[in-house]
Amino acid sequence: MDLALCFSGGKDSALAALLAAPFFDVTLVTVSFGLTDAAEHAREAASALEFDHETVVLDRAIAEEAVERMVEDGYPRRGIQHVHEATLEAVAKTGVGAVGDGTRRDDRAPTISRAVAQSLEDRHDIEYVAPLAGYGRSAIDTLTAERLAIETGPSESLAKGDYEHELRTLLASEHGETVVEDIFPEHTQSVVRGRRA
Amino acid sequence: MDLALCFSGGKDSALAALLAAPFFDVTLVTVSFGLTDAAEHAREAASALEFDHETVVLDRAIAEEAVERMVEDGYPRRGIQHVHEATLEAVAKTGVGAVGDGTRRDDRAPTISRAVAQSLEDRHDIEYVAPLAGYGRSAIDTLTAERLAIETGPSESLAKGDYEHELRTLLASEHGETVVEDIFPEHTQSVVRGRRA
Repeated sequence: MDLALCFSGGKDSALAALLAAPFFDVTLVTVSFGLTDAAEHAREAASALEFDHETVVLDRAIAEEAVERMVEDGYPRRGIQHVHEATLEAVAKTGVGAVGDGTRRDDRAPTISRAVAQSLEDRHDIEYVAPLAGYGRSAIDTLTAERLAIETGPSESLAKGDYEHELRTLLASEHGETVVEDIFPEHTQSVVRGRRA
Repeated sequence: MDLALCFSGGKDSALAALLAAPFFDVTLVTVSFGLTDAAEHAREAASALEFDHETVVLDRAIAEEAVERMVEDGYPRRGIQHVHEATLEAVAKTGVGAVGDGTRRDDRAPTISRAVAQSLEDRHDIEYVAPLAGYGRSAIDTLTAERLAIETGPSESLAKGDYEHELRTLLASEHGETVVEDIFPEHTQSVVRGRRA
């Protein structure tokens, strides 16, 4: 079965791809609002992992709405969830057999509930798969250390490939850097540089 | 990491083992109350899949309690859940790095909530992994058809290796065959005969 796996260039979606690879024909898919070159960095990470990669363009209105929610809330969770669900919808429409992501058992955002998963599957006649959904943080950390070469650094300087980077850029241009720092107080991100052994 | 994966001889736990195998040193573990030779059938299925296999003996009191719950309820869910949680506890105590099972996203019993998983992990300093937790029924059916040779038949005649067989036997001896048929109305089971391709 062909699987389009949503890919940020980060370690979770990379590990999800490795777990799925023996059982699916995996293409990594990164969404872009066209606001930054983030998807290009994701393409480089996908190449280092030796996976095919595609970019899917999302309507900028989705980013605008996500950013407004973040500013309203003062934290990013609901905005991230909005973009993630829009991403799955867009990828599901590309005609693949299965769509997936790197959501983990212990994630708070984005999360895909059983109800949302089944709705996605029923409406698009597709499978939704979350290879990391059955793994907790510690098991994922162990598998990541065993299988992936990772670079860690501050999120404002590390060239990560996910929509979060584009949302930060939009947030900064519309509301200023201070608001970005209020909403995204965690500064450490990770970028995948390749596979290990 | 070594993973002790609870194994019934059925297709879900077999598929979970295949998904985990590239990333863990997997041993399949079947529990037994010593009431039937069910665990021997699981050992044969494990051998056909080319996995190591161990049997862990559970206290008969756990089976007695499960059967009483089933008779009280008129359906097996709470009794099955009781035995499954006792199984994970017993396997977690055997000194492995990770314990796992074949629970699926769409299962109703047994299910392991995030809270139960974290409690198991914290109390035993272990990882709990559920390789099928991120997969729905249809994706699992597709992967099963691709990867496993399966025999399907009526559950009262097929020599399956799981604790359900022992619970049925105990239920029949204490409450009669009619009660077994009331509580377990579904008659079709599947047994794994080996890998495909």
